[in-house]
Amino acid sequence: MGGDFGPSVVVPAALDALAQYPHLNLILVGDEQKLLPFLSAASYDESRLRIQHASEQVLMDDSPSLALRNKKDSSMRVAINLVQTGEAAACVSAGNTGALMAIARFVLKTLPGIDRPAIVYPIPVRVDQAEMGRLRMLDLGANVDCQGEHLFQFAVMGSVLAAAIDNIDRPRVALLNIGSEEIKGTEAVKQAAQLLSQTDLNYIGFVEGTDVYQGKADVVVCDGFVGNVALKTSEGVAKMLTSYIRREFTRSLYTKFIAFLAIPILRSIRKRFDPGEYNGATFLGLNGVVIKSHGNAPQHSFKKAIIEAMLEAEKNIPEKIRSEVEQYLVKRTPV
Amino acid sequence: MGGDFGPSVVVPAALDALAQYPHLNLILVGDEQKLLPFLSAASYDESRLRIQHASEQVLMDDSPSLALRNKKDSSMRVAINLVQTGEAAACVSAGNTGALMAIARFVLKTLPGIDRPAIVYPIPVRVDQAEMGRLRMLDLGANVDCQGEHLFQFAVMGSVLAAAIDNIDRPRVALLNIGSEEIKGTEAVKQAAQLLSQTDLNYIGFVEGTDVYQGKADVVVCDGFVGNVALKTSEGVAKMLTSYIRREFTRSLYTKFIAFLAIPILRSIRKRFDPGEYNGATFLGLNGVVIKSHGNAPQHSFKKAIIEAMLEAEKNIPEKIRSEVEQYLVKRTPV
Repeated sequence: MGGDFGPSVVVPAALDALAQYPHLNLILVGDEQKLLPFLSAASYDESRLRIQHASEQVLMDDSPSLALRNKKDSSMRVAINLVQTGEAAACVSAGNTGALMAIARFVLKTLPGIDRPAIVYPIPVRVDQAEMGRLRMLDLGANVDCQGEHLFQFAVMGSVLAAAIDNIDRPRVALLNIGSEEIKGTEAVKQAAQLLSQTDLNYIGFVEGTDVYQGKADVVVCDGFVGNVALKTSEGVAKMLTSYIRREFTRSLYTKFIAFLAIPILRSIRKRFDPGEYNGATFLGLNGVVIKSHGNAPQHSFKKAIIEAMLEAEKNIPEKIRSEVEQYLVKRTPV
Repeated sequence: MGGDFGPSVVVPAALDALAQYPHLNLILVGDEQKLLPFLSAASYDESRLRIQHASEQVLMDDSPSLALRNKKDSSMRVAINLVQTGEAAACVSAGNTGALMAIARFVLKTLPGIDRPAIVYPIPVRVDQAEMGRLRMLDLGANVDCQGEHLFQFAVMGSVLAAAIDNIDRPRVALLNIGSEEIKGTEAVKQAAQLLSQTDLNYIGFVEGTDVYQGKADVVVCDGFVGNVALKTSEGVAKMLTSYIRREFTRSLYTKFIAFLAIPILRSIRKRFDPGEYNGATFLGLNGVVIKSHGNAPQHSFKKAIIEAMLEAEKNIPEKIRSEVEQYLVKRTPV
């Protein structure tokens, strides 16, 4: 029960998801005394929702190592334990990202053939003039220094996810680089390109930052430093642009009148670029499904993270990654 | 005379700049036969504009090493030679970036104490609700693998530039990172932070991608891979957003009517985020002023690059960097 809003957002989002997906069952992990008040007034099927009490909480500024060592009865730890024992098919948390990653990695372990889990996130892109789509970009911050082999593993995992969840037949996989020529980029990027060109993946080569939002690829691979900066500068630009637009539309009585007439247009624009519409980052490469929600996600947005977790559990993403990676490991091992 | 449009954009931009700045003198470097037609009909002060003939041209897809070795009479090479001999105070080119950097580095050399030149660019940022400002971000693509010492040098150079050109008393210098805590980031970033905290620079610590456009810093430092991706994804987001806005405003007769009423607002938004308004990337750290214009810059935008070059030459940026860097080199050398 983490995040900026705790049960006041998580519980209504859970009830909402239960109502929408009749086959879904949920376990709320946290302080029972704090959770019950949010449930008492609600009507829901008690056979599909239960509380698992946890006496501690990982705070937003706890260090990952402290959370891992000292908070063995935190809601985060208990929730991940439930995934490990198989009682839960997936874990969703809006809490401390570093702690969630450390605990998930410690308890669930990485899949065979995967050195490091990656954080992946759906990003809105323009498919053409009339259509919006989304792509999966990874890693977004779990790994700051990556070698080619790591980028290669990210690519395999991202391709599995895009195929299974976004229903793309042969996802177009690209490496993020600073130019499309083969000689450009870091050694890691060049090495990953080499490895990817030897696989059956639909590897389409390098893309540049400008291409990310043009819908040229379904999976964009980069190291966690680059991915984190790219994602966050994108958010920053969108925020600056929308705040500037708001300012221009409220500058005078005349512009306010036009803004009034344009309400449906402006609302559609805001909805399209609302970060909450794209909530739910996956920790990919673990023996289990772990989804991180934005800490400040409102209810409709936290629900998106629950749905992402449900879909990934249904499609058994960890197992799909395991078998896909195994294939490449076998191919590379000389007989 | 490079870029996508050649003399048809460069010559009118040059004449425009001459008319606006009475103390400016310009040399047009390129094929005389191609340049003359653009001048014949124009009226200008012949004592302030002359043509320097060059028989060759670096093409957009020439490799930097080929351009450097084989095209000794290219307009690019001749223009940079003019800076080296002191006949010109600065060089502006819209041509092949890699070739321009290779030639500039070979002919002009880097300043003492600077290992690698960096590419720096003014970026629009939001200062507060009512004000827009700009910051200098570097490196934007010249150096893909940087150590802490390189980032440190970029910070010193960026600070000099922001102080002199943007008239900022003590520019706030920040390192781009994936979190504001001290433990985050690559070794290079941590090492640069260590070096910067020992200087008199106004070093304010780490900023994240989201902070870049919030006006929290005047100079943002990163390696060329990260900077290039950040800049280009920003362009991509802005492009996607503005194209989506255009689409929403042209969806129906009603929205088109509102768009008509909103023309002054939409025009102001477009002008603010027109990349052409921020043209002119500086190659910083060389023994001379070299400015790279966008290849597809239109006339008003190429003129901005000329003005940037003029200002940097007037303020003698290379000399200012030399003396600033010298100070730190002396301090670090044990007596």
